Amino acid sequence: MTLKNLNVCLSPALLPFYELEDTTAVVIDIFRASSSMCYGLANGARAIIPVAEIDECLSYKDKGYLLAAERDGAVVEGFDFGNSPFSYTGEKVAGKTVVLTTTNGTQAIQRCKNAKTIVMGSFLNISALTHWLKSQNGNVLLVCAGWKNHMCLEDTVFAGAVVDRLEAPGLTLDDAAYAAQSLFRSANENPAILAKASHSKRMRHLHIEQDIAFCLQQDLVSTIPVMKNGELVCLPTYTSAVQ
Amino acid sequence: MTLKNLNVCLSPALLPFYELEDTTAVVIDIFRASSSMCYGLANGARAIIPVAEIDECLSYKDKGYLLAAERDGAVVEGFDFGNSPFSYTGEKVAGKTVVLTTTNGTQAIQRCKNAKTIVMGSFLNISALTHWLKSQNGNVLLVCAGWKNHMCLEDTVFAGAVVDRLEAPGLTLDDAAYAAQSLFRSANENPAILAKASHSKRMRHLHIEQDIAFCLQQDLVSTIPVMKNGELVCLPTYTSAVQ
Repeated sequence: MTLKNLNVCLSPALLPFYELEDTTAVVIDIFRASSSMCYGLANGARAIIPVAEIDECLSYKDKGYLLAAERDGAVVEGFDFGNSPFSYTGEKVAGKTVVLTTTNGTQAIQRCKNAKTIVMGSFLNISALTHWLKSQNGNVLLVCAGWKNHMCLEDTVFAGAVVDRLEAPGLTLDDAAYAAQSLFRSANENPAILAKASHSKRMRHLHIEQDIAFCLQQDLVSTIPVMKNGELVCLPTYTSAVQ
Repeated sequence: MTLKNLNVCLSPALLPFYELEDTTAVVIDIFRASSSMCYGLANGARAIIPVAEIDECLSYKDKGYLLAAERDGAVVEGFDFGNSPFSYTGEKVAGKTVVLTTTNGTQAIQRCKNAKTIVMGSFLNISALTHWLKSQNGNVLLVCAGWKNHMCLEDTVFAGAVVDRLEAPGLTLDDAAYAAQSLFRSANENPAILAKASHSKRMRHLHIEQDIAFCLQQDLVSTIPVMKNGELVCLPTYTSAVQ
């Protein structure tokens, strides 16, 4: 058995049009949820619980969890932190369980709940992720979290990078996978395109440029976050810490 | 006044996330609805009435209309014709009103109904279209009809070609516009990417390759179909016939 179909979902709002059965869903939210999840688990967080709503996140208060909430790029008032990767260092998260809600990423995870497996992808774990995906059967769906149901450049470029590494004879790509691959190749030749991303502009406005640079690093970790019983934990065979 | 925002909607399912007020919507269904509409009006059709459902199309039977219906790339049984451009020659449509329903294009038009203006775009009328768009105010939304709510390469490449012609200082592009422009530029350098399009494969399977070649011709007409009172007619200042 090998992989059959490799598709790219450019917005969570398009998920209803994809078959999730026998599918490994890779949720992508480069700026910054999926990057921070990879980094946090690599740094020894016990688990990260993604929840869609702020109220749900608040229901974990005073029970020994770290509460993290981001909306529109900023930490929500009253929460320990948001989704900046610098909040997911070993010092802050080792041995802890983080409950996290974000504008786009955690909601995309919820909408993938019918997939066979849900993992998180980011530039930080791209080589570990693609190596593992190649060993899987069935279908792979790369789910770009986007921004409020709009496609966004950075998630699509990352999806294209994964397509570029997985493309092989016998693997069927959909049009969005070809488009993402083309965008990745263009961005590889001319990285300035990522500076045009609306989310980059939004983050510059919030003075969190260092988060952008951090999230674009490749292979900082070899951890693959996987959903198990409502929690993101390290995929068992990929538990190595930050290199 | 000049254009303010230039956005690309990659699937009709994403239309609810766009502001249509003060917006000129350009509906794009390269293979083949928007191409055939441009060609049919340039060839003297009085009007084309786009309807979303086959039953609605049938309600015009025996009232002097030409009935056209396409589903999954083929002419629906019992109809005069489908959406092949070769069915929209002067011989067939001059002076007639065509009622047309297609898998994707006519439904995309219906979903744009709150836009200030709805026009149809295709490679066949790209220069006339972009010249006219440059003279407009407010926002432009390029609406890719796609295939059953999935993005498709040919509509996105065309949207990117329009972005490439309209891009100007002071005009704000969304991420999808940048992505479409990048895809267009890649396709321009390497047209083979369009052969990868799932719809191209679907049409080859149906032995309608000549339709693909026809729809990729640039500037065959200078007609811009515009919605007026539920009908697509020639935009008044752009009524010239096939060059």
